[in-house]
Amino acid sequence: MSTAALLVIGNEILSGKVRDTNSAYLSVELRKLGVDLERILTIPDVIDLIATETRAMSDAYDFVFTSGGIGPTHDDLTMDGVAAAFDLDIMLNQSMVDRMERHSKVPINDAMKKMAMIPDGADVLDVGGLWFPVVVVNNVHIFPGIPELFEKKFDSIRDRFSGVPFQLRRIYVRENESEIAEILNALLREFSELMLGSYPKINEQDYRVLLTLESRDPEYLKRATDTLVSRLPADAIFKIE
Amino acid sequence: MSTAALLVIGNEILSGKVRDTNSAYLSVELRKLGVDLERILTIPDVIDLIATETRAMSDAYDFVFTSGGIGPTHDDLTMDGVAAAFDLDIMLNQSMVDRMERHSKVPINDAMKKMAMIPDGADVLDVGGLWFPVVVVNNVHIFPGIPELFEKKFDSIRDRFSGVPFQLRRIYVRENESEIAEILNALLREFSELMLGSYPKINEQDYRVLLTLESRDPEYLKRATDTLVSRLPADAIFKIE
Repeated sequence: MSTAALLVIGNEILSGKVRDTNSAYLSVELRKLGVDLERILTIPDVIDLIATETRAMSDAYDFVFTSGGIGPTHDDLTMDGVAAAFDLDIMLNQSMVDRMERHSKVPINDAMKKMAMIPDGADVLDVGGLWFPVVVVNNVHIFPGIPELFEKKFDSIRDRFSGVPFQLRRIYVRENESEIAEILNALLREFSELMLGSYPKINEQDYRVLLTLESRDPEYLKRATDTLVSRLPADAIFKIE
Repeated sequence: MSTAALLVIGNEILSGKVRDTNSAYLSVELRKLGVDLERILTIPDVIDLIATETRAMSDAYDFVFTSGGIGPTHDDLTMDGVAAAFDLDIMLNQSMVDRMERHSKVPINDAMKKMAMIPDGADVLDVGGLWFPVVVVNNVHIFPGIPELFEKKFDSIRDRFSGVPFQLRRIYVRENESEIAEILNALLREFSELMLGSYPKINEQDYRVLLTLESRDPEYLKRATDTLVSRLPADAIFKIE
């Protein structure tokens, strides 16, 4: 199975000025691909921090994604941080300058040139008709923070990431969570490989708990689901999906 | 100044089944209070991980908040993880049992009793008329993952956290970010204490970049804002807030 981690870089998220939607997007998309997202970390725009956390994630997970900090301004420090993570120099990448000039049709200014300063030896992947490529350093994939671009770029290279997707069943239950907790615990003792989620809902009319059952093995999931359904009080089940 | 970190605990967030809104809520509220949120980390429901990350955050920041993992089911492991972080035992807290029984009016079952198992010596804060209190271990504040409860509980104890709030100005600019980047960099050389944010927007009709200027010193902020406005091309400014 493949694992992944996401590093969100940006004071604007931590200070509540901008709401991070890339984490939620990536968690859903990686799940569909069968990649286990195991860590999401949001940190400020500080080179040393970016370096330390990028390196730790790169060592611990198969795929690392970064979000944010690759624009032309002073607070865009992701390229410097990722370079420092792997003791690489930051170099002007001529193929990126060429792409920018083709796109803008005029010579690029210093601020744009800053965006073409990337870790030495990085891979540069052209994606989805966008003028700015995805830069990849070892297993670290560098994405912009702007949600529209993050999503478009990820979508363009999603085929690089894959595993065996999880199958999911949902059971909506009318009882309180504390009333079914013992049934759930017994189920898990029998189906130790099952991923079982139990989520109380406060503002729903028709049910009080959403149960999710997941496995990569459809047969196993079916047996676990059937077992659970047979043990819940019949009138406790509002809906099964 | 006070600093803070948030630990979000839950497979449901990482797997994209539930969208985390507590991070965004807390970032906005702490900002209003003048507390610097410096780290948001989302991890799976694994005791050792919860323990390691809680301890690291507790050592590094003034206030730590956890979100999720305190219900009655098998995957609710936050209390165990926080206890392990500080080498504390998990004990049945009689005052919490009493609260539950007063609320439910009948003897509580084993699943509910699990929710009253908390780290030995923890503080138990009654909040906002809710039957379930906020549990505090050293500087770690343990909150539920359900957004309505997270928000209500935080709101009830917000007075415990405070600092000097930031003042914020926003300038909406019609130019591309790369065209004003050098003006911004020059501004920061003069106003090195200024927090300057620059956020390109793709889908806005009237402007291309939102600039945010922040400082805890209103005078300093005013001087920085006036300086920047005087240097931007007059027709580049769409709006100042």
